[in-house]
Amino acid sequence: MSFRVAILGCGTVGGAVARILLEQREALRERVGREVELVRIVDLFPGQSSGRHGVPRTLYAGTGDELTPEQASAEIERILADESIDLMVETIGGSGEPILRIARCALERGKHLVTANKALLAKHGDQLLRVAQERDRGLGFEAAVCGAIPIIKGLRECLTGDEILSISGIMNGTSNYILSQMASEGQSFDAALADAQAKGYAEADPTLDIDGGDAGHKLTIVLRLAFRLDVAFEDLPRQGIDTITAGDVEFAQEMGGVIKLICHAQRERDAVYAAVRPMIVRRTNLLSKIDGATNAVRVVGRYAGEVVEIGQGAGGPETGSAIVSDIVFLARYGEVTSPAPTRGRLRLRPLGEIEMPYNIVFETADVPGITGIVATAIGKQDININTVSHNRHERDNAEFAIATMPCTRAQVERAVRDIQDNHPGSLLGEPRILPILV
Amino acid sequence: MSFRVAILGCGTVGGAVARILLEQREALRERVGREVELVRIVDLFPGQSSGRHGVPRTLYAGTGDELTPEQASAEIERILADESIDLMVETIGGSGEPILRIARCALERGKHLVTANKALLAKHGDQLLRVAQERDRGLGFEAAVCGAIPIIKGLRECLTGDEILSISGIMNGTSNYILSQMASEGQSFDAALADAQAKGYAEADPTLDIDGGDAGHKLTIVLRLAFRLDVAFEDLPRQGIDTITAGDVEFAQEMGGVIKLICHAQRERDAVYAAVRPMIVRRTNLLSKIDGATNAVRVVGRYAGEVVEIGQGAGGPETGSAIVSDIVFLARYGEVTSPAPTRGRLRLRPLGEIEMPYNIVFETADVPGITGIVATAIGKQDININTVSHNRHERDNAEFAIATMPCTRAQVERAVRDIQDNHPGSLLGEPRILPILV
Repeated sequence: MSFRVAILGCGTVGGAVARILLEQREALRERVGREVELVRIVDLFPGQSSGRHGVPRTLYAGTGDELTPEQASAEIERILADESIDLMVETIGGSGEPILRIARCALERGKHLVTANKALLAKHGDQLLRVAQERDRGLGFEAAVCGAIPIIKGLRECLTGDEILSISGIMNGTSNYILSQMASEGQSFDAALADAQAKGYAEADPTLDIDGGDAGHKLTIVLRLAFRLDVAFEDLPRQGIDTITAGDVEFAQEMGGVIKLICHAQRERDAVYAAVRPMIVRRTNLLSKIDGATNAVRVVGRYAGEVVEIGQGAGGPETGSAIVSDIVFLARYGEVTSPAPTRGRLRLRPLGEIEMPYNIVFETADVPGITGIVATAIGKQDININTVSHNRHERDNAEFAIATMPCTRAQVERAVRDIQDNHPGSLLGEPRILPILV
Repeated sequence: MSFRVAILGCGTVGGAVARILLEQREALRERVGREVELVRIVDLFPGQSSGRHGVPRTLYAGTGDELTPEQASAEIERILADESIDLMVETIGGSGEPILRIARCALERGKHLVTANKALLAKHGDQLLRVAQERDRGLGFEAAVCGAIPIIKGLRECLTGDEILSISGIMNGTSNYILSQMASEGQSFDAALADAQAKGYAEADPTLDIDGGDAGHKLTIVLRLAFRLDVAFEDLPRQGIDTITAGDVEFAQEMGGVIKLICHAQRERDAVYAAVRPMIVRRTNLLSKIDGATNAVRVVGRYAGEVVEIGQGAGGPETGSAIVSDIVFLARYGEVTSPAPTRGRLRLRPLGEIEMPYNIVFETADVPGITGIVATAIGKQDININTVSHNRHERDNAEFAIATMPCTRAQVERAVRDIQDNHPGSLLGEPRILPILV
């Protein structure tokens, strides 16, 4: 008896899944112990999808070149009602009510569900995992976080003999490409973004990539697995890379680091401190060496120590490979009830509450005495200074950076307010504050 | 009903497993869905082991400070006969008949088996996997390859939606530590080895680490999982690092690379070309950045592209964490029959048969004309030369290196023989040939 799979949405990722299932049919049968059969595809443009991915037209629902939305909905209902289908791949996208209903329905009607939909999982993952558990079905989402890197199974199935102390990751390829270009080519943010769009690494609307939203979706999912935290996406502190200047990049290099958009979570006693933030990563940390659109995740376990995984975070075949690995896993083990996704005892706290070193870039009037004023204010908040970076003089302004020893973000902000309150006019604009990841 | 575990051999690794099972008892129960209970430990020195690892003496078999070998054997037989024990951890070591019998017996009597014993698996893994499959039991060996890096589950459970094209890894921490010291400190091989021994990275008898034997055991295991090849350990071409000189290290640096002991396997059509070899790894390859005792594995999939995993390859807690992850996996899914480890259609071939770039270091008499003789001989074998590295003059000798474009090892060896046959006396000693990994 074969293991029967249907695909909803056959674009770049869904098409790659279909192709892999067909090309690797024999190998998959050997791995699973029975045939993995692709039985049905629903896509609004079956003709185009079939031609583009080289997938037989007969597998697609409908007979013409297009399906109306009503026809597509009816075809999806037919699949949901078909008890012979074991697993549904959802590669439609979106996180609204219609797609949530389809996902929930698939599980409720006894199908395993595999999806790459990080927005859906970030918002409704807890609900979907609960339904899956009630119905004894599996929910696979390896493809939702860091594409080809097996970080989801890494957390769910591999690092299960350990207690995870921290996770830090480069989980958004677009922003990493932009930051890499700024560092290696000295480009401005706007030029690097335009370059990323020209090369296809960034969408026409790159908002979610550069404002930390996409990375936040992924960290939300990871927090659930690694720490059993049910985090509302909105509660996770986030900051994007759109405020990073060429000057920030230079200061980072001067202090032996490089700016990366980091998803970071760190466990201390009964709390997990987490945020998505541009950070200066020291060159001793492997994450500093990850350039271009590549993703990487660094996990520190109490016993295992540091484990780093690196790979491509996006792309049709890369994401398709991750989805098919979920299909294989569920075909092998899906009948086994996995333990309920119980809520843990840990609380989510903003990352800024724990002590980290910070780099603060001050833009000031180019007059003597400013460094003393700033350094004094920092000292008054009990913050030790690590290094003061070179003054850069430009027209009448000066820019300089201070790297601190570990302190909280609140301490840094109090020092800045002290300067602003007691020496009005000495700072031009808000100082730019970046945490330093060692 | 709890999941009952016994540990045979409670030294560095077994002791770490015991400690993790006790310290993480609550977390493991939540992950598995039932209690994971450590019920019995057999060790020749229970008093010492209990004190060292802080594990209650009552869990150990026997009442005195020591067990005689006969007593230990009787205790092991008792565990093998105890139907209430679900899983046996074997951390005794060795690959002879007695330990093979214990491992086979555990499976035959319906227990899951978890082991870190790479020598045993390299020699008898196929047999043990077959017995496990016949008896519907699981055989876990995450800890046998690269300690804390989840490369075994990475191949068995994670990259299962792909076709693996190549694997290259730094799988022996001791040799990587020695090579890193030679590169960063300019030490000789002997000095770096002595340093590794003083720091505890190398055993008093470091033979298996430096002759490529340990790395070969691991590659044998990996070949079985990644390519379904049943390789006899003896058939795998191996070379250690004991012939690497400070001069080789310098030439590697000059050409933008670094010498690493690499386990490499590459699929081409119906064959897998594999070997353990010191190679010059180009700095563009992430493996070149892995220093000290750290391990790393780079897998290239047809769809996933490049995936790299990095972590600690040895150490009690690191290896213990891997073993406990196997226990969790088997407690969750062990009842599911995994597919038989069928022999694949791929054949093993020596790595030297495929084309790779090579670096050849020639030691010659310091007389004019030698470079021409060597370069001509290389050209005669249809090998294109990439770069010729600086001559080093020392007393009456000269040393220089030629990096080739991709060719087979046989071509290189023919060129060398041509020089030796037709220009006797021009070469002092055998040229040192290292493949280049790009």
